[in-house]
Amino acid sequence: MVSPDPSMNPFFAPRSVAVVGASSRDSSVGYAVLRNLVFGGAGKRDRSAGFPGAIYPVNPKGGEILELPVFTNLAAIGEPVDLTVVAIPPRFIPGLMDEISAAGCRAAIIISAGFAEMGEAGHALQDEMVARARAHGIRLIGPNCLGVIRPHSRLNASFGAAAPPPGRIGVLSQSGALVTGIISYAEREQFGLSAAVSLGSKADVNDTDILRWLDGDPETKAIAIYVEAFPDPRAAYETMREVSKNTPIVALKGGATAAGAKAASSHTGSLAGSLAAYSAAFAQAGVLQASSVRDFLGWSRALAYQPTPAGKRLAIVTNAGGPGVLSADEAGRHGVELAELSAETMAALDQVLPSVWSRGNPVDIIGDATPERYREAINIIGRAPEVDGVVVIMTVQAMTDPEDTARAIVHAHEEPSWKKPVVSSFLGLQGTAVGSTLDRHGIPEFNTPETAIAAMGALMKRGAWLRRSSAPERSFANMPAPDLERARALVRDGQAAGQTNLDLARARDILAAAGIRYNGSGTAANEDEAVALADEVGYPVVVKVVSPDVLHKSDVGGVVLHVIDGAGVREACAKIRATIGEHQPGARIDGFTIEEMVSGTEVIVGMSRDPGFGPLLMVGMGGIFVEVYKDVVFRLIPLSRRDALEMIGEIRAQPLLDGARRRPVLDRDELAEVLIRVSHLVDAVPEIAELDINPLVITADRGLVAIDARVIADETE
Amino acid sequence: MVSPDPSMNPFFAPRSVAVVGASSRDSSVGYAVLRNLVFGGAGKRDRSAGFPGAIYPVNPKGGEILELPVFTNLAAIGEPVDLTVVAIPPRFIPGLMDEISAAGCRAAIIISAGFAEMGEAGHALQDEMVARARAHGIRLIGPNCLGVIRPHSRLNASFGAAAPPPGRIGVLSQSGALVTGIISYAEREQFGLSAAVSLGSKADVNDTDILRWLDGDPETKAIAIYVEAFPDPRAAYETMREVSKNTPIVALKGGATAAGAKAASSHTGSLAGSLAAYSAAFAQAGVLQASSVRDFLGWSRALAYQPTPAGKRLAIVTNAGGPGVLSADEAGRHGVELAELSAETMAALDQVLPSVWSRGNPVDIIGDATPERYREAINIIGRAPEVDGVVVIMTVQAMTDPEDTARAIVHAHEEPSWKKPVVSSFLGLQGTAVGSTLDRHGIPEFNTPETAIAAMGALMKRGAWLRRSSAPERSFANMPAPDLERARALVRDGQAAGQTNLDLARARDILAAAGIRYNGSGTAANEDEAVALADEVGYPVVVKVVSPDVLHKSDVGGVVLHVIDGAGVREACAKIRATIGEHQPGARIDGFTIEEMVSGTEVIVGMSRDPGFGPLLMVGMGGIFVEVYKDVVFRLIPLSRRDALEMIGEIRAQPLLDGARRRPVLDRDELAEVLIRVSHLVDAVPEIAELDINPLVITADRGLVAIDARVIADETE
Repeated sequence: MVSPDPSMNPFFAPRSVAVVGASSRDSSVGYAVLRNLVFGGAGKRDRSAGFPGAIYPVNPKGGEILELPVFTNLAAIGEPVDLTVVAIPPRFIPGLMDEISAAGCRAAIIISAGFAEMGEAGHALQDEMVARARAHGIRLIGPNCLGVIRPHSRLNASFGAAAPPPGRIGVLSQSGALVTGIISYAEREQFGLSAAVSLGSKADVNDTDILRWLDGDPETKAIAIYVEAFPDPRAAYETMREVSKNTPIVALKGGATAAGAKAASSHTGSLAGSLAAYSAAFAQAGVLQASSVRDFLGWSRALAYQPTPAGKRLAIVTNAGGPGVLSADEAGRHGVELAELSAETMAALDQVLPSVWSRGNPVDIIGDATPERYREAINIIGRAPEVDGVVVIMTVQAMTDPEDTARAIVHAHEEPSWKKPVVSSFLGLQGTAVGSTLDRHGIPEFNTPETAIAAMGALMKRGAWLRRSSAPERSFANMPAPDLERARALVRDGQAAGQTNLDLARARDILAAAGIRYNGSGTAANEDEAVALADEVGYPVVVKVVSPDVLHKSDVGGVVLHVIDGAGVREACAKIRATIGEHQPGARIDGFTIEEMVSGTEVIVGMSRDPGFGPLLMVGMGGIFVEVYKDVVFRLIPLSRRDALEMIGEIRAQPLLDGARRRPVLDRDELAEVLIRVSHLVDAVPEIAELDINPLVITADRGLVAIDARVIADETE
Repeated sequence: MVSPDPSMNPFFAPRSVAVVGASSRDSSVGYAVLRNLVFGGAGKRDRSAGFPGAIYPVNPKGGEILELPVFTNLAAIGEPVDLTVVAIPPRFIPGLMDEISAAGCRAAIIISAGFAEMGEAGHALQDEMVARARAHGIRLIGPNCLGVIRPHSRLNASFGAAAPPPGRIGVLSQSGALVTGIISYAEREQFGLSAAVSLGSKADVNDTDILRWLDGDPETKAIAIYVEAFPDPRAAYETMREVSKNTPIVALKGGATAAGAKAASSHTGSLAGSLAAYSAAFAQAGVLQASSVRDFLGWSRALAYQPTPAGKRLAIVTNAGGPGVLSADEAGRHGVELAELSAETMAALDQVLPSVWSRGNPVDIIGDATPERYREAINIIGRAPEVDGVVVIMTVQAMTDPEDTARAIVHAHEEPSWKKPVVSSFLGLQGTAVGSTLDRHGIPEFNTPETAIAAMGALMKRGAWLRRSSAPERSFANMPAPDLERARALVRDGQAAGQTNLDLARARDILAAAGIRYNGSGTAANEDEAVALADEVGYPVVVKVVSPDVLHKSDVGGVVLHVIDGAGVREACAKIRATIGEHQPGARIDGFTIEEMVSGTEVIVGMSRDPGFGPLLMVGMGGIFVEVYKDVVFRLIPLSRRDALEMIGEIRAQPLLDGARRRPVLDRDELAEVLIRVSHLVDAVPEIAELDINPLVITADRGLVAIDARVIADETE
């Protein structure tokens, strides 16, 4: 658990709250905030759900609103103020900071809009507000936000229409509108929140502060974060990585197509958009990234209320064939395995189920299943060692009351003899008494079976993340020893020579200095040199013409592959001279390139720098398919060996890495080592802006060999 | 519109219904069916929602149930019976057919289970029942089904707990449980059905019969079909293809991992599982295939209630930034484009929106948007020629009543000056009065913004399907002329020679006979023959050793690429002899293979036979990636030119086909022609069980050239 910042406490558990800009006009924000504090939400008329501490409306007009005396300014209150909510025109707010400080208050929620989002003048106003707040040690949430809701403190310091019931999910959102949406869902779908924070423009308090606070909050069992952009992506990543060790986090990223990634000249750069960096950060931090509002909430509910499973083997208990089949289909889409039931489990089920039950998983307990039959089947399945989690499906039928079944599921789940996650879908009954019975007892009930399966998938992914073991070290004596000082000198030489896209010879030397094996090659001026070079490089080699006049070497016979000895090199040179003389008379021949002939599966390793997250490493399938199938995986640095192995494991074309179709088998540790060496290189040499090793070839006998590379250096001033 | 079969009418609009097996025991199916007929559903106690025609309970015990006199048998009724619902033990049912016939009834719903699903004896019983029914001209739905519901006739001839409100969606389901689920959704989410038919075991009436009837039904505007397996897949495909011209169909296929596809020896066969055949059939028939219950219902609702858009350009109107951003992200996942608003539209919006509106699409009309502001903005957007459809998003906020906003959206949509589809999401308000206001007026309201976008995506896909134009004919004089008689003779020769996997020379000749260009090649016994052959094949050529002793030709220098003339052929042969002599002394050299050297992007074309749908054609990216990325597309035959072009257009690696990275550009018409020729081949030569052309190379100058092929013939008896 990360240590929470005590300056956040007044936002969640103040003893007193002042509302600057309180108003009696019921269409105003200042009224809505005051009403929410007093009554807990719209449409309520007694204070039992309202804030139990002192509430001080502040408005220069004075008077009374909602039976509370209005103070003409903060100073007039004369009592300590823990939290100030501000809903007045922006131009007055910087000055207000002095008054807030004078009132002994160190926490303010700025609801008002009209700051940085309104251009330069607004930006200046925001800077002034923040500077004054910092001078006084005041923390600010907002501006341009909905506010903060903390159900356990009966605190609704927002202008939303409603407050959610208390629960275990901490919500953190850049969008205030999404918070109001989530509150609507929470009311309808019967789940509760531990806190809801709308961060707005994040002028001071940002995601990191709230993540840390929620991690330390005993009420919060899962965090749901909606983000369009982190003000400090790197810090947010590091915080998430710490927090997620203790508290599961589900993220929804808005703006998948956000512009702003600068034009890139490498493959890696062109594939690494802003979304790729965010997704890499989430994956590496153990954050589950949802791509829909449905999964954002569904996963959060499951993680907040259900135990983490010990494995990925799911059993489905259903009274409905079709929905059972659909659930089984869906499991495969979430990496969830269907448990194979043991003979013991089958025998136990035979005892309690009618003879026509499915005798397999999904466990179809037949349309007329009674609550008792559900309870018994779930208990047997729950105790089965081959099962890690249970999804319960039910469709209504005329003969039993679905609420009785809901209660039976609750009883089974409360059985002390087993503790595994259970989620459910009673098709179409979400938000009814049935859903409520299940949800009140912490069994998330979803409208459709696929949502339930996806939520179980999230639990199983979380379990796998927590079970990750560190990867053992291994030595790679057959790889060149890294010399990062030399690599940096080479990059600077290139820059001094006016290069940004460094020439191939330099790129090759830089990689060698980073400790990455490159195929042997060199350029010879004539036949004798060519033979000597080939002897050095090692056979077989490829001989290529060097000519300023030849554009497509292969088309004019300028390339000879698979040359196996010195005599062959001479023959190849002669042949090239002859063929070119024939096809392109007069073409100059300056010499020959000799390259070690390398063949095998091609992968790509690369790096680009994200403006927010820093160096972003990429690994994936190389060659011509890299841009078409985008079978690449990103991570941030520093990169642990385990991170590197996970990246490799996420490449889709696993069979090609494992030697399908008689290809060389990848040594995963060695590729992980290449990734780690690249991460050391780009860490030690900040002048490298982008880098591609493409292809890096998986060879049968020489491990991984780079045969082409591109290194882009920063432009020097 | 297909012509409906009048024998289906009694299932949907009977004048009288008999229930054989009616019971007064309220946990029995026979009671549930009778109660649903009398009252319309469970929990109802007056007949206003019940069936208005005559209802005849039948039970040998006689007496009275639900105030209706019980007849001891069908003959005792003495009045005409249009429909008989049967819920008695299976062994009595075959005999019952005579009584049904004697009562003048020609339609029966067999609710009872215990037939073919119970093994051999059950199968025999089912066969007997069907034989007797057919002898009498009686149509049967079931057995083992939930029944039939026709809200417009106030007919609930099922044992489900409830009936849906009348509406426009016709539901057809192999799973009775899914029908009850859908009824729960319909009640909660405020949409209506035109009919719900649970087909059960499909012993007689099957999907085809009901599809045709629904197509002819004026109440049905969209059909939602859940299927695990069609009894006659080919007939179902042909019916869907006809029906979908008039009535949109959404399909949900259960059992994505269904076994039963026989072990295959071709690439095509191994990629073409049962699901691929179903998906191909749906795509080719213009059926929209959903992969979740959520989209199954969401798409059906949109298609049933909203007009088909003229294009794919979407505008999003929202009062909420975050949900607007998420909706825009989601649009890209469904092939929906965000409309670029014209200067005129922007100017018109400027007139009615506050100055801080987003000035772009999503059209963010700001959190405090009034109903009037929604109405005006939607009307401007609706009239804009650059917009084809509108998604309206709203999150609740304290200052306005969401129901007023719902009404304003309805008013805008009813504006006669424009007619475009509108769907909406008021986050978290599905099933409330707000949702009901919208849904009652035919504007589907969805719980999450992504569901609304997906539904709009379905409307836009439907529009694109209806707008398809036929592809013009073109001549392909440079391809060989097909001679399918010869192709068939070649296959039979191979079979006669005991081959199933036909040898390469035969495969090559068969493709040539089908009119597909193959690379030139042949085998020469010595240098002179090799030169003559190479002259015939055309340069450049590849020379390869023919030796029973050499396994990996390349490894011992047994392959010489890019040979450009006769002298080169002699040189290559000499070199091969020398190198092999050196590397593998004593290896026999029987001669040389000469192949036309072909290079370019590799695609695969193939065929496998699905037991239900018949020949399944495949096209996709070839080479080593075919099994890894599975970038392949399937269709059934016969294949129109338009179908073929659509297949090609669905390959993911479009840039590689279009000449990315200086590759040859594909002539799409020519590849379509290859597909059509393969379809003619496999139609004319039923002895071909499977076929792969892999790779078929897109060359720069010679069009498409096959360089390897596999033809599998049926085993002869």
